[in-house]
Amino acid sequence: MKQLNLDTIVATLEGLEETIIFKLIDRAQFKVNHSVYEPGKSGFVDADNSASLFELRLRYHEEADALFGRFCAPEERPFCKDLPIKKRAVTLPETGLVIDDYDTINLTEDIKKMYIQSIPKLCIAGDDQQYGSSVEHDVYALQAIARRIHFGALYVAECKYQKNPEVYRKIIDQHDEQALLETLTRKDVEQKIIERVKNKVAHVQSGINPQVRRSIDPEIILRLYEEHIIPLTKKGEIVYLLQRKPQVTP
Amino acid sequence: MKQLNLDTIVATLEGLEETIIFKLIDRAQFKVNHSVYEPGKSGFVDADNSASLFELRLRYHEEADALFGRFCAPEERPFCKDLPIKKRAVTLPETGLVIDDYDTINLTEDIKKMYIQSIPKLCIAGDDQQYGSSVEHDVYALQAIARRIHFGALYVAECKYQKNPEVYRKIIDQHDEQALLETLTRKDVEQKIIERVKNKVAHVQSGINPQVRRSIDPEIILRLYEEHIIPLTKKGEIVYLLQRKPQVTP
Repeated sequence: MKQLNLDTIVATLEGLEETIIFKLIDRAQFKVNHSVYEPGKSGFVDADNSASLFELRLRYHEEADALFGRFCAPEERPFCKDLPIKKRAVTLPETGLVIDDYDTINLTEDIKKMYIQSIPKLCIAGDDQQYGSSVEHDVYALQAIARRIHFGALYVAECKYQKNPEVYRKIIDQHDEQALLETLTRKDVEQKIIERVKNKVAHVQSGINPQVRRSIDPEIILRLYEEHIIPLTKKGEIVYLLQRKPQVTP
Repeated sequence: MKQLNLDTIVATLEGLEETIIFKLIDRAQFKVNHSVYEPGKSGFVDADNSASLFELRLRYHEEADALFGRFCAPEERPFCKDLPIKKRAVTLPETGLVIDDYDTINLTEDIKKMYIQSIPKLCIAGDDQQYGSSVEHDVYALQAIARRIHFGALYVAECKYQKNPEVYRKIIDQHDEQALLETLTRKDVEQKIIERVKNKVAHVQSGINPQVRRSIDPEIILRLYEEHIIPLTKKGEIVYLLQRKPQVTP
């Protein structure tokens, strides 16, 4: 079985921070545009009336993604159901994960909910009619956030298990979610991440000409990490560990 | 007729620089992956054999974009032909442009060619098998660059015409492309843009941890602007002006 290296995994997570930050700043160039999130207001001539423009954009995007094989990667979990099957062969390196079905760790409902709730903090209130651009950037940001959460949930959890199989196995067998949460939580690491993210947001924007491009308050992305991205990653870790099969312990 | 304001237009172009830079840096996290640009190597089970994975991704993306009405905006010119018609009503503010068909100013063939030629300078040589992610980021970067070029081509040209209608009308009537190029070129402005872009690339990346995320040489994006983005914008300005109708001179 493949031994996972925590340093490599942590480095990947750190490298995804800029991608998330870039995409949120790009979205923040447009106003909230509340109606794009309202069911039945997509304006699509033949669309399901219960869908919002945002939901429709997400579905069209993921349908194409599915054909290209995106969801073969463990950390790429789809937001939509009933997607088409892939049209190309995808070869993945050995993952090291010990689980039958990656999609049992799918936090996209939570991610979508918290993302939409964050929009009024991220963007200026009001409507600029840039609906198409808004939902396009929503999808990019949402996918970047989901990739970070699922990557962390799967690989960090497996890594922690590999380091301490006896401890984790015992808690898993007891199905003790609270003990799992306490065992995998590292408050010092979390604090380091949110400080670093805040500094990155401030730094990336410090060269921006405020007359031509909107900047966002670094506190907003700090809180997104602190209140949502990190807790959801840990929620995913717990779901992974509860299903982690015992037999292939190294 | 709507009077265009050059300061507003220049500000929009400046604001698009970060978007282009962010997307190119994101693409540069993956290797060149040459085979994604090779016709017939898409690996798609039922695809047109002459298409590359990159071409297929671009087509799927633009087909969804077309349904959402993206190409109603003057500066959003499609790379692909025979796209589906839009499925929602799109209301655009008055553009101020004086031209019948925006698609007569479509530089996407040039943009695609120069973009693919730039990939070996932007990315590390070799193959990391991240084909899906590579072409996904290609499409994002390509669309951001195309938006900048077409926005500049259309609005900067119209603005310059409005400021100096007699001078431009005379050259247009003579169909003198060389004189148009000389009249609209502002070397000092171009120099300011490429310096600013170079500084932005350096600044945005200066906070990056080189152990977790790849940085690119700011000179590469400087040259992309100097040798391609600015010249193609001016090429588009000339095409616009040659078709600019005289009757609605303010």
